[in-house]
Formats: sequence, structure tokens, C-alpha cells
Amino acid sequence: MVPVRQSNATLNAVSAALHVVGLGPGSAALLPSLTRRAIMSSAVVVGYSRYLDLLPEALLEGKKLVRSGMRNEIARCNAAMDAVLSGENTALVSSGDPGIYALAGLVYELAGKRKLSPADLSVLVFPGIPALCAAAALLGAPLAHDFAVISLSDLLTDWGTIEKRITHALAADFTLVIYNPRSPERDWQLNKLLELSIAARGEKGYIGLVRNAYREKEQVAILTLGGFNPALADMLSILIVGNSETRVWGGESGQTGQDWLKGARMYAPRGYFKKYPG
Amino acid sequence: MVPVRQSNATLNAVSAALHVVGLGPGSAALLPSLTRRAIMSSAVVVGYSRYLDLLPEALLEGKKLVRSGMRNEIARCNAAMDAVLSGENTALVSSGDPGIYALAGLVYELAGKRKLSPADLSVLVFPGIPALCAAAALLGAPLAHDFAVISLSDLLTDWGTIEKRITHALAADFTLVIYNPRSPERDWQLNKLLELSIAARGEKGYIGLVRNAYREKEQVAILTLGGFNPALADMLSILIVGNSETRVWGGESGQTGQDWLKGARMYAPRGYFKKYPG
Repeated sequence: MVPVRQSNATLNAVSAALHVVGLGPGSAALLPSLTRRAIMSSAVVVGYSRYLDLLPEALLEGKKLVRSGMRNEIARCNAAMDAVLSGENTALVSSGDPGIYALAGLVYELAGKRKLSPADLSVLVFPGIPALCAAAALLGAPLAHDFAVISLSDLLTDWGTIEKRITHALAADFTLVIYNPRSPERDWQLNKLLELSIAARGEKGYIGLVRNAYREKEQVAILTLGGFNPALADMLSILIVGNSETRVWGGESGQTGQDWLKGARMYAPRGYFKKYPG
Repeated sequence: MVPVRQSNATLNAVSAALHVVGLGPGSAALLPSLTRRAIMSSAVVVGYSRYLDLLPEALLEGKKLVRSGMRNEIARCNAAMDAVLSGENTALVSSGDPGIYALAGLVYELAGKRKLSPADLSVLVFPGIPALCAAAALLGAPLAHDFAVISLSDLLTDWGTIEKRITHALAADFTLVIYNPRSPERDWQLNKLLELSIAARGEKGYIGLVRNAYREKEQVAILTLGGFNPALADMLSILIVGNSETRVWGGESGQTGQDWLKGARMYAPRGYFKKYPG
């Protein structure tokens, strides 16, 4: 028999806990009540300023806020852990899901380095709608079949590992979800991704771009790989490269070049009509 | 410049629309208000009976419900599209995220087959917390680095394609998320996955299993690949096979064999301490 564990869903812990909370895409309308309760039950809220600004003000009223800059992840996690160890219920917030390229992993890693056990530090992760689902919903249904998720940032991962993952994922015909495609100081990696994708899928393969999903200045575009301009992408963008069977519905589907497929949606077939033709 | 498109977040469409809605893991506390509003604004709600039963009764009051069996996906989508075409705002619901192995892709595919254009049929996809994030949150943070998502069901995809994806994903050291690992009539595929995973990661590689995340009878277990009993898994389970760097925090980490790592969490390091050692 598999062991049964009390769900994260219970919030009535007696001692202080670290709530690692995902805010989802950023719209308050996409915050579940469990997430709101995790924040409301915390005396301290720690996060990158940009994420804290996404939250409804009412949720943060009366809280001690610990705002941090973008690249201080380790300091941010340590500050949240210190607050819990001093007896204060604490929420460590980030956008999307806290487990996907976010802080939940770093919390566990730091807890180990600090020789803290689960008896010393209670950690609860609250899932959120990840950026990959928000982007997919706006593009259509590009993730209806198997997919691989890759960050193009080589700040913490060597480029050899990233390129190997891209190559294998393309060879196995996964749909690709690309996080952190391009920053002002880091732009050649996206060109390399496009080159490898075109070699595998052809110039007419589809690529979707979503910026600021469910926020102000939301941008959604479906293009062909050959017609994609890398300058469209930045660190706020998610890219989705279709698999060999990805199709579009609607839109002016003959267009290529710098034009996007206006009004189109992209989707990956599941295979129902291979199995049940006609 | 990238085109700006009106967000799915606006629900004030004048004509009827098809709302393809993800219910998340199944707990009402994980339903965002946008999702609730999409259902409340619909006169017809279509779904697999098991999913409809997950919804708070108050949300379904006064709705025309179209319940369907498990394997009638095409009929279910057509029924929802027909309701919209007859002028009724309709919600097509499924658990998790509607874009991941769910019905959003099939809706677009059927719309194409039925020669409907976006002018004929307005489709809006509402993202939900996918099963992969719910499982990851309960296990720790196994998806903090690149990962690949694979369904083991060969009902619609030939096994050769599935095995190729497993092999490439393991070779590129992705963490693996496995949907549909095993059913009463389909059990050898999971044995094959375990065999391939052990060949790539060794007997001591970690595997996490989550059943019924955030529902009654929730079960969470972290085991070694060598100690994993395939009979633990079924169609309600998500499996996560760690990458070569996946570690555990807490728990009785010396245990192997049939024992799970009690109280442990598994996580994938991002690489902060390779970059900043000490």
C-alpha cells in the first residue's frame, strides 16, 4: 500500500510554516482561494518586487513585506526561511507555478545546506497555473500531446546541456516549451534554437509567442519558424515550437514571412483521427 | 511589433462561446474566480461525469448538464460545439489544465473537420493548475529544472513513438513526468519505462508517485527506481522520474527496497551552488 500523507490543502498548522506560493499568470482572477488563504495566513510576505506588485493590495494589508531584486534568489529564500525560524508564518511568492524554474527547489536545497530537517522547518508548496499553461491557452492547444520544457538561460546551466536537450527533444518530436528565450545580454541562444528547430521541422513549422499572458500588454502571435523574428522575444516571453503534426485552425494560414497568422490557433493533434479515420 | 489580442480574461462576448475549462486538481479551493465565472456564464455544462462531480453543486445549479462516459471524447466535444452553435453559452470541463492531454486540442481539430471558422465558433480556453504541478508540489520541487511530459497510453499513439520519446528524454537528462502510467488492461508499458529509467539513472534514481492530488485518498510516495512496485500506479497516478541530479530533503534517505522515503521531498537543483559554490 502507498502511504497516505496529509494534503498541503490543510492550513491549520500550529507552528509557523513556509508557504511557497505560485501566483499564476498574474491576474487576480486566476488566484485560487487556497492561494489567497496561504498569503492571508502569513505575517511575512517575501518576493521579487514585480511579483508583489501583481497581488491585490487588500491581500498584503498589514503584512511585513520583504521586497527583493531580481537576481537575489538565495537571499530571498534565506530571508523567508529565517522569518519562519523566528516563528512567523511566511509566504514566499513568485509568478506562475513555484515549482517550475522558481523558488521551491532552492528552498529545499538551502534547507539541506543549512542542516535543517522537516522537523525544524515546515515547507508547504502551493501550486499555481504555470506560464506554460497560460501561454498554451492563449495560443490554442499546442500542448495536447507530449512536450518538453527547456530554459534557454545559460546563467546556471552550461549551454552544452541545453543544446543537448533541444536536440534530443526535437529528434523525439516533442513540442518544445521555451522559458527565458532572450535577454538584452543573451541573444544568440535563441538564434541557435531557431536554427535547430528549422533543421528538424522545416521553415514552415509553427512557433507561438506569448508575452504578458493575462496581464496588461498581453501579446500573442503564431508564426512560422522561417518567418520568426527573434527580436520579438524577451525574458517575459514564452515560446512554443510545434511538433511535426502541429496544425493551425483559422487565421490566414497561407501567410509566412514577417507576418503572423492573424486570428489563428495552433494545436497538437492527439491522434483520434489516426485511430478513427473519417 | 507583435500583434495585441484581447485576453481570454474578458467574458463579455455578445454571442455564445465555447469555454474550454480546466478544473485543476479537483479541490474547489483551487478553482480561480475566472474559472468559476466561465462556468457560471454558461447555460450548458458538458463533461465526463467524474469531473462534473468534482464541482461545487452551487456552480451547476440551473445548468443543463451533459454527462458523458470516459472514452467518448469526440462525442463530448461535438455535443459542446453543437450547444454553442444553437446559441447557448457552453462550458466543456475537464480536470487539470484543458490543454494538457485534454479536450482543447480535440475541439480545434473537430472545428477544422466540421469546416467551422473562428467566425462561426468562438472558442476560449481557460487554463487550470495541471496535474503535473499538483503532483510536483506534493512531492517537493522535482520540476525546478528542464522536464519532459509523456503519456504512456498507446491507445492513440504507437508505442514506438512513446519509447523513442522516453529514450531521448532520459539521454538528455530531463526529469520525466509520466501521465497515464498503467491501467488494468495496459501494464507492460510501465515496466518498460522503469527498465529504461534504471538503465539511464541506476537503481538508486528517485521516482515520485502521486494519486488523487488534493482530493480524498491523496497518496504521495518517493521511492528509488529499484524499489518501485509498478502495481502502485494506475490511471489516477502521476509519476515523476528524477534527473541525474535530483536529490531528497528529509526522510529516511537510506531506505530502499519496497520502502518509501517517509517524509522526504524530492527536488531538482537549479545549479545555484555549482555557479556559486560554498
